[in-house]
Amino acid sequence: MTKMMKGYAMLRIGATGWIEKPVPVCGPMDAVLRPLVVAPCTTDIKTVWQGALGERTNMILGHECCAEVTEVGTLVKDFRPGDKVVVPAVTPNWSSLAAQAGQSSHSDGLLNGWKYSNSADGVFSEYFICNDADGNLAHLPNGVSAEEATMLADMVAPGFQSVEFADVQFGDTVLVIGIGPVGLMAVAASALRGAGKIIAVGSRPRCVAAAKGYGATHVINYKDGPIEDQVFALTGGKGVDRVCVCGGTGEVFVSAVRSVKPGGKIGSVISLAMSDKLVVPSLDWGFGMGNKQIVGGAMVGGRLRMEKLGVLLETGRLNVKPLITHRFYGWDQLEEAIFLAREKPVDLIKSVITVG
Amino acid sequence: MTKMMKGYAMLRIGATGWIEKPVPVCGPMDAVLRPLVVAPCTTDIKTVWQGALGERTNMILGHECCAEVTEVGTLVKDFRPGDKVVVPAVTPNWSSLAAQAGQSSHSDGLLNGWKYSNSADGVFSEYFICNDADGNLAHLPNGVSAEEATMLADMVAPGFQSVEFADVQFGDTVLVIGIGPVGLMAVAASALRGAGKIIAVGSRPRCVAAAKGYGATHVINYKDGPIEDQVFALTGGKGVDRVCVCGGTGEVFVSAVRSVKPGGKIGSVISLAMSDKLVVPSLDWGFGMGNKQIVGGAMVGGRLRMEKLGVLLETGRLNVKPLITHRFYGWDQLEEAIFLAREKPVDLIKSVITVG
Amino acid sequence: MTKMMKGYAMLRIGATGWIEKPVPVCGPMDAVLRPLVVAPCTTDIKTVWQGALGERTNMILGHECCAEVTEVGTLVKDFRPGDKVVVPAVTPNWSSLAAQAGQSSHSDGLLNGWKYSNSADGVFSEYFICNDADGNLAHLPNGVSAEEATMLADMVAPGFQSVEFADVQFGDTVLVIGIGPVGLMAVAASALRGAGKIIAVGSRPRCVAAAKGYGATHVINYKDGPIEDQVFALTGGKGVDRVCVCGGTGEVFVSAVRSVKPGGKIGSVISLAMSDKLVVPSLDWGFGMGNKQIVGGAMVGGRLRMEKLGVLLETGRLNVKPLITHRFYGWDQLEEAIFLAREKPVDLIKSVITVG
Amino acid sequence: MTKMMKGYAMLRIGATGWIEKPVPVCGPMDAVLRPLVVAPCTTDIKTVWQGALGERTNMILGHECCAEVTEVGTLVKDFRPGDKVVVPAVTPNWSSLAAQAGQSSHSDGLLNGWKYSNSADGVFSEYFICNDADGNLAHLPNGVSAEEATMLADMVAPGFQSVEFADVQFGDTVLVIGIGPVGLMAVAASALRGAGKIIAVGSRPRCVAAAKGYGATHVINYKDGPIEDQVFALTGGKGVDRVCVCGGTGEVFVSAVRSVKPGGKIGSVISLAMSDKLVVPSLDWGFGMGNKQIVGGAMVGGRLRMEKLGVLLETGRLNVKPLITHRFYGWDQLEEAIFLAREKPVDLIKSVITVG
Repeated sequence: MTKMMKGYAMLRIGATGWIEKPVPVCGPMDAVLRPLVVAPCTTDIKTVWQGALGERTNMILGHECCAEVTEVGTLVKDFRPGDKVVVPAVTPNWSSLAAQAGQSSHSDGLLNGWKYSNSADGVFSEYFICNDADGNLAHLPNGVSAEEATMLADMVAPGFQSVEFADVQFGDTVLVIGIGPVGLMAVAASALRGAGKIIAVGSRPRCVAAAKGYGATHVINYKDGPIEDQVFALTGGKGVDRVCVCGGTGEVFVSAVRSVKPGGKIGSVISLAMSDKLVVPSLDWGFGMGNKQIVGGAMVGGRLRMEKLGVLLETGRLNVKPLITHRFYGWDQLEEAIFLAREKPVDLIKSVITVG
Repeated sequence: MTKMMKGYAMLRIGATGWIEKPVPVCGPMDAVLRPLVVAPCTTDIKTVWQGALGERTNMILGHECCAEVTEVGTLVKDFRPGDKVVVPAVTPNWSSLAAQAGQSSHSDGLLNGWKYSNSADGVFSEYFICNDADGNLAHLPNGVSAEEATMLADMVAPGFQSVEFADVQFGDTVLVIGIGPVGLMAVAASALRGAGKIIAVGSRPRCVAAAKGYGATHVINYKDGPIEDQVFALTGGKGVDRVCVCGGTGEVFVSAVRSVKPGGKIGSVISLAMSDKLVVPSLDWGFGMGNKQIVGGAMVGGRLRMEKLGVLLETGRLNVKPLITHRFYGWDQLEEAIFLAREKPVDLIKSVITVG
Repeated sequence: MTKMMKGYAMLRIGATGWIEKPVPVCGPMDAVLRPLVVAPCTTDIKTVWQGALGERTNMILGHECCAEVTEVGTLVKDFRPGDKVVVPAVTPNWSSLAAQAGQSSHSDGLLNGWKYSNSADGVFSEYFICNDADGNLAHLPNGVSAEEATMLADMVAPGFQSVEFADVQFGDTVLVIGIGPVGLMAVAASALRGAGKIIAVGSRPRCVAAAKGYGATHVINYKDGPIEDQVFALTGGKGVDRVCVCGGTGEVFVSAVRSVKPGGKIGSVISLAMSDKLVVPSLDWGFGMGNKQIVGGAMVGGRLRMEKLGVLLETGRLNVKPLITHRFYGWDQLEEAIFLAREKPVDLIKSVITVG
Repeated sequence: MTKMMKGYAMLRIGATGWIEKPVPVCGPMDAVLRPLVVAPCTTDIKTVWQGALGERTNMILGHECCAEVTEVGTLVKDFRPGDKVVVPAVTPNWSSLAAQAGQSSHSDGLLNGWKYSNSADGVFSEYFICNDADGNLAHLPNGVSAEEATMLADMVAPGFQSVEFADVQFGDTVLVIGIGPVGLMAVAASALRGAGKIIAVGSRPRCVAAAKGYGATHVINYKDGPIEDQVFALTGGKGVDRVCVCGGTGEVFVSAVRSVKPGGKIGSVISLAMSDKLVVPSLDWGFGMGNKQIVGGAMVGGRLRMEKLGVLLETGRLNVKPLITHRFYGWDQLEEAIFLAREKPVDLIKSVITVG
């Protein structure tokens, strides 16, 4: 008899609710997991209420989670039932040609390294499965709470990724556009990678305070005029060396391209699912000859990444506690947390739900 | 008494003609040069008749040249009068902060490494000056004619640059958009950098033949349907690893982005001076998460680059003779050559004028 | 009843012979293969007669092979019985942390990506197994014989790797030390990656001729004096930009370091198993401050690499036929081929044995 | 009449003293400078008393300095008399081929980017000259004392360089060998570039305390056993991802190579002038196939580097005050400071002499 479980799902565009599904079957390389802490992501909101991924029916939501292993496949070597783990949002097929080419996020097709709440059921569920457990799970870092470790999955990872895309170097002036939780992690990562001046763009007071705490030397408000104008004022007209795009829509690239010096680099981790197109003014892009590189991409996922970022928590280099502004307890409060994320009150940075 | 010389100049947007100017004065780091072979470039045409750089008054045209040194400044060590040299189109200030950051083309400001027929008088003149002679001139490669070496200045250099921007690796499938002389050099450079399949886009029979000679495995005609459709047909729907953009306007990036795999790289060396903007469809750019990098930039200039490319001619790795389809002799024929470049007959790839 | 098969094995250091073993059992991700063409490698010789890997008992030899798939595991998607494939010498565990860090050859420990005739039975056997078939096998390139494709496994791959380690750029002067089959592929790869002058070091006439055919502009004989002296004579005292080390023992690095310019790069793919140590003279290494980088490493293995190199054969960019100087037919001639490799007659570059 | 000045010079190997020389003549690109703060370097000590550079006669010592501009050449644009500047130890010829290749430290020959107290008179002098002032001087960072800024010249720069050579990435475990002032800056730079665990090697209590303050998570003493044994104990036998070599002699590479994982990278900035050779055990280097890269090189010099590092002081990312343990005032105390550096008492990290 099939064992059943409950999960909180996108029923269709615009509608969510609890559903029942069979507990997933564990393949040879898989692990079955039971969530300990989960967190809703703005992406979940966009997926459901903006239809950002297109239609999905009865797909369990959620891709940020720490969990306990309940079962492992016959080929799994490094994990066993009872292990507490961080689960990355992106769980690639590491044997794929894309992964061999260094593009694991696109294993088996564009963005197909991202499975949870995209092409497969997510983590808002009594049980869920992780493909290639040895390659994709990471043990909870020593001395780090499950709550904090949950921030690694899809907040720390893309924020740090944007800084790698932008290739921040010692002493660089960096512009971070957007200071939601991902942008805050980009600020932290810029400082941790040796940036000099860090100019963050945002307006919500709690986020502004957090940005300064993470190392922003200047915070500008896009309501005070075009970002690039404020950037030029702060840099003596020189512009910045690097831009991390962690918020906004397709238009944000206009400011990014304008703000960056010739030879500078723009690293973006935002989804443009709700934008038709990326538009870059020819003049500001140096008529195509300005060597202003544009990298927009998915973050690296998998075990190594989680371990490497985890050690930053373990050693105290990075403190994610300021991100967690709201806490919920039990599956019963999950929906409330999701609706809060949809509402996005001014004092919310990130909420977590302890469920295990 | 000031010594005077004749030069062929852009009088204003839409008008050219011979003018007189003083022979330039040689500063401590400079060399004064007398052209041996010059070549008109499409950029000259756009500068004059499309106003691509904005207004310029009585600016001597031309930036492709081999020359003889007639005078050197007191600090110049490696060149002396009588030396025959290749002059790169881009002659940076190597002490500048931009050059120290690896962006010499933007020394002292966006694109300011490119001086001839942009911010300073060009080479279509009895005499012209080269700033930082030790850093920017290169001796004519052994056994290479001045005619061939002239191709290095602004045909070989950007073509090869696009391949470096696109970061072509062994076995990669490469799409080269545009097979004018620069695009043909991108085809050659792709083959010389280990590409597997090379798909070139063009239509003029002489260029198509040259592309095949340079290593294109497939040539597609944009008149036969969207480039990306033809690319997918040739690659089993997979797309290409790399794209070199060597022709077209802002819209060409739509095809480039569509044709490239997630994680692929687009290297562009075209000028978008006549395009308002670069437009990239969000969907095709993986909604910003496709890791499809876009690099559009100026080529590296200066002495080392000319020497390195020159050795490819010297060793026979690269044969530029197929590029030179039309030959002129003497300053008297310069205008005819320029007007030919403007007219762009179907059998023209590149013309040269031997003047010294 | 266990099905048995014959394999040609290292019985112990210094002794080889045919043994019987059970046909390997196919795990979920594995494929079982039947060899079509195999080739003995100098490494096999060193393993047996010099004890280069330490003691091995009844280990089936061989790691260069094209084969036919006879069975696949339940998780294998891209291959099926009857498929003809190239098998790389290095077959990593792609889920490993090392592979995620871009070091697949060291998956699960130093050099453990190399399994055949190292840590596991090799390919000189009626049947053998490939771990992670989807990640490690490649279909035979179109229009390429199994004989030629066999050269990809461990001749083309390390030769090309050395050129990547040395980071050869357009117009570079490259020194290739050693022109056995791997060194010849380094010569070919240097030319294919845009080198200018290529100075190869070797003495055997057949190899010298092949080196010139593959693009060497100069061949020097180490018997004519120190390599570095000859290099300086050929480069006007400047030295080379890059060195590919494809032959020799630990002492060869003295010449490599001496020959390379400050800021140059040395890429080595040789095994130093028979050398106690790598010795680099302090003076020649710029007293540690010469920026002469030394990279010695295992080649990349797996499916993508075989496919990418395979396309170079498919498109005719690379012709491996000059490598194959001796041909054998049937398992009965395998031992003769191995003994020939041990004897290394002056006209031998590489032998192949067609067995299927 | 030639204006004369006093300078503290190496008279010959083993002997120092004050001498008189003409005030240097300012060329078109040069600046003449008057020191404000200078600092003696261990390199000066080795140059004089160990003859590390070979014989030098009446060469003025010193290459760490902040100064005031007293005169500039006709081509200098960005500096004028009265400007206060940081002077890097390495002042390249930026037009050179080596600089164009990204190897400015070797402009015009191995290590020839380093001029002061090597190939030219140094800064321990009433006046000294800076070649290519626009390319090599940097204005004193805002709000930073000349004392602190003097640390940039040859302490911060090589320490940070070693971390770039080792290519430290987020979460990496880094081993820093040597915690003199350069090693301490490598510790600081590792933390600033996102390292996780940082294991520093040293014994002097003041340095150990400083290392912990700069972010070392572990400090080991080489007197307690082989470095590698202690590293393995601290890393569960895994070794480290990166090694920064900032102290020791040629033998230190044995520990470095043993301690680093396959695929790891070793960045060294030490001088091996007093070592005959670099010796790397074959076994520990993975028999040449371990992908353990070794980069030993000179640091980048020049203006951009000083500006970029200066902004780290300006923004408070880096605090160099803990380096300065001893202060002297006036040229009269210079010799005492030099002799202190030679004596190297246990509580000395770095001394500075305020002279202007």
